Amino acid sequence: MKVAIVGATGAVGTEMIGVLEKRAFPVTELIPLASPRSAGKTIAFRGEEVPVQVVSAEAFGGVDIALFSAGATRSREFVPAALNAGAWAIDNSSAFRMDPGVPLIVPEVNGADMPKTRGTVVANPNCAAILLTMALKPLLSVGTLRRVVVSTYQSTSGAGALAMEELVSQTRGYLEGQEPNPHIFQWPIAFNLFSHNSNIEANGYNGEENKVMEETRKILDLPSLPITVTCVRVPILRAHCESVNVEFEEAVEMDAIRNALEAMPGVQLMDDREENRFPMPRHAAGKDEVFVGRIRHDAGCPNAIELFLSGDQLLKGAALNAVQIAEQVVETIG
Amino acid sequence: MKVAIVGATGAVGTEMIGVLEKRAFPVTELIPLASPRSAGKTIAFRGEEVPVQVVSAEAFGGVDIALFSAGATRSREFVPAALNAGAWAIDNSSAFRMDPGVPLIVPEVNGADMPKTRGTVVANPNCAAILLTMALKPLLSVGTLRRVVVSTYQSTSGAGALAMEELVSQTRGYLEGQEPNPHIFQWPIAFNLFSHNSNIEANGYNGEENKVMEETRKILDLPSLPITVTCVRVPILRAHCESVNVEFEEAVEMDAIRNALEAMPGVQLMDDREENRFPMPRHAAGKDEVFVGRIRHDAGCPNAIELFLSGDQLLKGAALNAVQIAEQVVETIG
Repeated sequence: MKVAIVGATGAVGTEMIGVLEKRAFPVTELIPLASPRSAGKTIAFRGEEVPVQVVSAEAFGGVDIALFSAGATRSREFVPAALNAGAWAIDNSSAFRMDPGVPLIVPEVNGADMPKTRGTVVANPNCAAILLTMALKPLLSVGTLRRVVVSTYQSTSGAGALAMEELVSQTRGYLEGQEPNPHIFQWPIAFNLFSHNSNIEANGYNGEENKVMEETRKILDLPSLPITVTCVRVPILRAHCESVNVEFEEAVEMDAIRNALEAMPGVQLMDDREENRFPMPRHAAGKDEVFVGRIRHDAGCPNAIELFLSGDQLLKGAALNAVQIAEQVVETIG
Repeated sequence: MKVAIVGATGAVGTEMIGVLEKRAFPVTELIPLASPRSAGKTIAFRGEEVPVQVVSAEAFGGVDIALFSAGATRSREFVPAALNAGAWAIDNSSAFRMDPGVPLIVPEVNGADMPKTRGTVVANPNCAAILLTMALKPLLSVGTLRRVVVSTYQSTSGAGALAMEELVSQTRGYLEGQEPNPHIFQWPIAFNLFSHNSNIEANGYNGEENKVMEETRKILDLPSLPITVTCVRVPILRAHCESVNVEFEEAVEMDAIRNALEAMPGVQLMDDREENRFPMPRHAAGKDEVFVGRIRHDAGCPNAIELFLSGDQLLKGAALNAVQIAEQVVETIG
């Protein structure tokens, strides 16, 4: 497979290349694409240095799979060129996610919705929505969801490599007594947290929260699922966490909840009450699984449960999920 | 007033002394008490160095108000001595909070429940419960609470001065490439977050969560309020945040919610959607107010609202609230 990566030098693009290599994806030719800023750079892949090319409509000739992770504007500009060239476009941006004609795929959750023909765009969901649907999907076999309430603890990686660098350099400065001078985020991130940096929209939710709510409904194929999300940026490098309250229409047994989560591919229970060992970013960072724990009956609502999850935003929240979609393409073609 | 501070060298004790000074509390004599470890230290108060004494039953002779912040074990040991000496004991520990005979006071919320006689213990609530009840109390005038769902973002100050130091020193080490070696917390706190460090109890909630739930019900005098709380420790120095979903029995108007919060003494609205400026620890640290924002209708539940709050754990969450209780004592004594 001839594979193009648009945004090959970004935080997610770098992880995509690492995941392709680690999972031995059948790449015959890798074409790293980026903005003119990255021209002249090379990308390490299978022990070789591959030169980065400037993205253009012509760059997609003969490409089988084009993985996009360079923001919604670039995707809107170049996904059509990739499709015209007959490629599968797997888009990590929000550009096409809520287009009714575009499948929004988390392979373990709704892989059955994958299209079967070339020249198709498949959207990779928002990172927090991927992690959330990985935990909610197995619960659908236990009961009917009545309402979901989520608060997130989102790492800086979701805002890109420069945001991660800002956390590190600003923290270093803080410890040396310097006043923070934010560039990437609006507010200081060192030893601070704040409402997610996306704009507030008409309904009072910010853009990130609306994405998580809309995309969760689409991925789970529950278009009227009542869900509310509060998205918060925390001074963490690369794994997100979510505190999730799930109310069902009927009483649910804790054993059934645990068994369903345990049986879910890509989910790992981490729920050791004795040792107080539960999902946390330091453990989830660099790992493929979504870790789920703190599972308990809601003391205030008879049909509700609480859980807490953590997953690597750059892997299952982005690059890994995109490559898993690409693996489904290989199966389809294969 | 002769005022004793038990735990005078701890994180909260230090703040108590600062608050007494800042608010010009009518102290005639300050008696800083601490464990033998702190013997020989002095405390700066109104420009003088006051020697720290080792806490003992005899130390409370002639004391009018004894402020306790040295943990539940010390409180159980020495509060009776303070009461025998005829003092008011204001206890920041969890030792007496849920005792039905002991008032649990947030002055702006239930100051009317203050006892009127000397030789009485008044409990200072859990920090997260104080901040939460400051935001919930004004909402009781808008509608009847049906259910509350809370996720916290709790700073290291809640675990004491050594925990704050561990965050700073471990972060410094991390930036120099050292493996973290946790002492105060069980898990690394630098660039990490985890389920609150209290033990998990029989109902699956940890001790901190059960405190917040029980104390919130007691302070609001709503003994059967349905409430669920998830407590999370984040790498922040001294202000806590809480993401709060409040469901009412009836439809509520956003204007009524805002007006009620705005009218609440000790609460400050910080809800600038245009500038994406909402409550955050860096802003709340060192301030007396509880900041409340991100107020919006819950998109998934017609009678519910969302809000996000931040307040200084050491001030309104502990020392300031205790001194406000002491001020009520002064008014009572008249």
